[in-house]
Amino acid sequence: MVDHVYRIIEVAGSSERSIDDAIRNAIARASRTLRQVGWFEVIQTRGHVEDGKVAHFQVILKVGFTLEDGQSDD
Amino acid sequence: MVDHVYRIIEVAGSSERSIDDAIRNAIARASRTLRQVGWFEVIQTRGHVEDGKVAHFQVILKVGFTLEDGQSDD
Amino acid sequence: MVDHVYRIIEVAGSSERSIDDAIRNAIARASRTLRQVGWFEVIQTRGHVEDGKVAHFQVILKVGFTLEDGQSDD
Amino acid sequence: MVDHVYRIIEVAGSSERSIDDAIRNAIARASRTLRQVGWFEVIQTRGHVEDGKVAHFQVILKVGFTLEDGQSDD
Amino acid sequence: MVDHVYRIIEVAGSSERSIDDAIRNAIARASRTLRQVGWFEVIQTRGHVEDGKVAHFQVILKVGFTLEDGQSDD
Amino acid sequence: MVDHVYRIIEVAGSSERSIDDAIRNAIARASRTLRQVGWFEVIQTRGHVEDGKVAHFQVILKVGFTLEDGQSDD
Amino acid sequence: MVDHVYRIIEVAGSSERSIDDAIRNAIARASRTLRQVGWFEVIQTRGHVEDGKVAHFQVILKVGFTLEDGQSDD
Amino acid sequence: MVDHVYRIIEVAGSSERSIDDAIRNAIARASRTLRQVGWFEVIQTRGHVEDGKVAHFQVILKVGFTLEDGQSDD
Amino acid sequence: MVDHVYRIIEVAGSSERSIDDAIRNAIARASRTLRQVGWFEVIQTRGHVEDGKVAHFQVILKVGFTLEDGQSDD
Amino acid sequence: MVDHVYRIIEVAGSSERSIDDAIRNAIARASRTLRQVGWFEVIQTRGHVEDGKVAHFQVILKVGFTLEDGQSDD
Amino acid sequence: MVDHVYRIIEVAGSSERSIDDAIRNAIARASRTLRQVGWFEVIQTRGHVEDGKVAHFQVILKVGFTLEDGQSDD
Amino acid sequence: MVDHVYRIIEVAGSSERSIDDAIRNAIARASRTLRQVGWFEVIQTRGHVEDGKVAHFQVILKVGFTLEDGQSDD
Repeated sequence: MVDHVYRIIEVAGSSERSIDDAIRNAIARASRTLRQVGWFEVIQTRGHVEDGKVAHFQVILKVGFTLEDGQSDD
Repeated sequence: MVDHVYRIIEVAGSSERSIDDAIRNAIARASRTLRQVGWFEVIQTRGHVEDGKVAHFQVILKVGFTLEDGQSDD
Repeated sequence: MVDHVYRIIEVAGSSERSIDDAIRNAIARASRTLRQVGWFEVIQTRGHVEDGKVAHFQVILKVGFTLEDGQSDD
Repeated sequence: MVDHVYRIIEVAGSSERSIDDAIRNAIARASRTLRQVGWFEVIQTRGHVEDGKVAHFQVILKVGFTLEDGQSDD
Repeated sequence: MVDHVYRIIEVAGSSERSIDDAIRNAIARASRTLRQVGWFEVIQTRGHVEDGKVAHFQVILKVGFTLEDGQSDD
Repeated sequence: MVDHVYRIIEVAGSSERSIDDAIRNAIARASRTLRQVGWFEVIQTRGHVEDGKVAHFQVILKVGFTLEDGQSDD
Repeated sequence: MVDHVYRIIEVAGSSERSIDDAIRNAIARASRTLRQVGWFEVIQTRGHVEDGKVAHFQVILKVGFTLEDGQSDD
Repeated sequence: MVDHVYRIIEVAGSSERSIDDAIRNAIARASRTLRQVGWFEVIQTRGHVEDGKVAHFQVILKVGFTLEDGQSDD
Repeated sequence: MVDHVYRIIEVAGSSERSIDDAIRNAIARASRTLRQVGWFEVIQTRGHVEDGKVAHFQVILKVGFTLEDGQSDD
Repeated sequence: MVDHVYRIIEVAGSSERSIDDAIRNAIARASRTLRQVGWFEVIQTRGHVEDGKVAHFQVILKVGFTLEDGQSDD
Repeated sequence: MVDHVYRIIEVAGSSERSIDDAIRNAIARASRTLRQVGWFEVIQTRGHVEDGKVAHFQVILKVGFTLEDGQSDD
Repeated sequence: MVDHVYRIIEVAGSSERSIDDAIRNAIARASRTLRQVGWFEVIQTRGHVEDGKVAHFQVILKVGFTLEDGQSDD
């Protein structure tokens, strides 16, 4: 049980509504193809502005997931 | 069209309600005098506490905007 | 009045709902035993994922508070 | 159209001639298997020296690309 | 169960033998007075040299622990 | 002669050809409205990719210039 | 009263005598054209050496000031 | 021979015994599916504590490997 | 004598006169309740401005002290 | 063959023409007195501006070289 | 006794066995020509991989030593 | 005249009186053996505490000096 080996990848997500939603969108998308997502860390919060208003928030996340035995590392 | 030249400035904004609102306030204020704001990046998230509660959230943003031809750089 | 001396500690808080709430939870908890909390700064925003969804958001904050005269520094 | 979700990977490239070429080589190689590469950021510029001369320049890039629907995140 | 609130402190430890031991010493000492230590992160690895040899290794750790209800934050 | 007081601003520039040219473009544009530009520092090197090729290089620079007496700081 | 919006700029100052004086010089100069300067943060401390002695100390500061309503952001 | 192009990924490994072993475990696991692993860099050293003792050490590594011609970049 | 274990805390101090004095004030205050303070490191130097002049300098210090046997870590 | 021990020094170089040339100049100069230079890393890219144009590019490099047996470390 | 003046240099060391040994090798080598080495700080931990195994660990250290009176600074 | 090539070294200095004096001491000592010292940058400000008072301030500086033709780089 002890020797956890996992990978960390970087994904981006965005939302017109909020930073929280941009995070949820990125996690939902990543979880469609990765079964064992365990945690995330926000490493950048940005956004686009149109007509003087925030058009959407965008986050870049580090996402950690467990490697299953048959799974490729790349 | 290729050689985009723009400036990046630092602004702060705050809100009693949420981090998202503090960002929107900063962008709205900056857009009153700058016409071509295109993006922002959050570089610090802070806040003040009064009576053991968050009194307001405060963000510091980098804000990028396009320079128009007659516009000064300073 | 001038020579403000205070301490800064690091606390973590979390919430199932939002980053804002994770901050409010950390501040509320810290304020139960520290009377003079004045400000916070978010130094890390993370979260846990379960079944492909954000299970909770977690923040690590620096929290500044004033030392009262009889209070220990450690 | 709004909720852009993409991934960021790290690649290295090198060239005997120039830093610009090392970047172009890395992008050209990454684009052979990734169809939607959109941007890059240089995060390290290094090089090897032989006989007192720069033998080749080497760059490490973050490269952002859009995830297509059938595509795996790992 | 969800809203974990804990504190993070910084401790140093050292050992004549190895970095691993310097970490174990710091954790053992911190755990004498803190009951709920859960994790650590190494933020600096240093050492002292005497007569041209490593006299001892020294680490500085961030240490996270859970706050119990009656416990003070300072 | 001694007490130099100057300002530092952040500008971006881009070029289809090279990083060197992106820098020159940013400096040339900034010098149209600022008379006393003295130095720059590259703080970010990025670029856009189209059809698997570098479409343009983009740099963000800190640019230092001397304040003249009648000049505003904002 | 709550939603403070301000700007942060970068200025440099120098002094033959001390770091403290270099800071005071930079603040005095910035305050000649900006009415609402509220705080500063030292982000770099440098200096020039002539004939083996410190010729002058130089600081780079971030300076925060409040935007008044008629004031431009650029 | 000159234009080396490779990818860098992030993996984590852990061990009950030592930091060195946590690194070896991460490298051994990554090498099961990646044939051309060439180097690693430790970017974080952490660990978990149980009953006042280090339960296991955990490292996060950047791992560089060469891309073979038929290999995908994602 | 070898296995030094100590703690590091963060304190702030300020002074109307100088950075050196702000440091001395922070150390003097911390030493009222901590008997074994051994060293400090300046991690931030800031200040407040009133009427275009530096009203006070403020420093944030990391302060290292030895843990005595009966002393609590929190 | 295994225990490579080498030193890393910091050098600066400049060129009126390009960043690549500024690097080559710094390496060529360092190699006049150091026989075993093996690699470099660019840690800063700056430049001077005269009459609104880039007068020269300047780089600061970390340069690694092997220590030969009779060679001094300072 | 008070005014300690010393220099800090950067050295690298490696070992097939462990990180601790890579540090000891770097210190032993540096101490062959520098008599007054007092401390070190690990600033990077890397390694090379061959055939899917760690071939050797490599560390980069900052090493501080006291300058004796007749000694050159370069 | 254009292609300036110089070296940067790291030195430490200390003083019982002030940070400014610790810098002056480090520069004076470095200038005894290096003839062409041109600038410095403070990269760390620390100090030792005895009996609850600052016993001495200590700075670590990067110091840049021009290489003369007959001079060794190591």
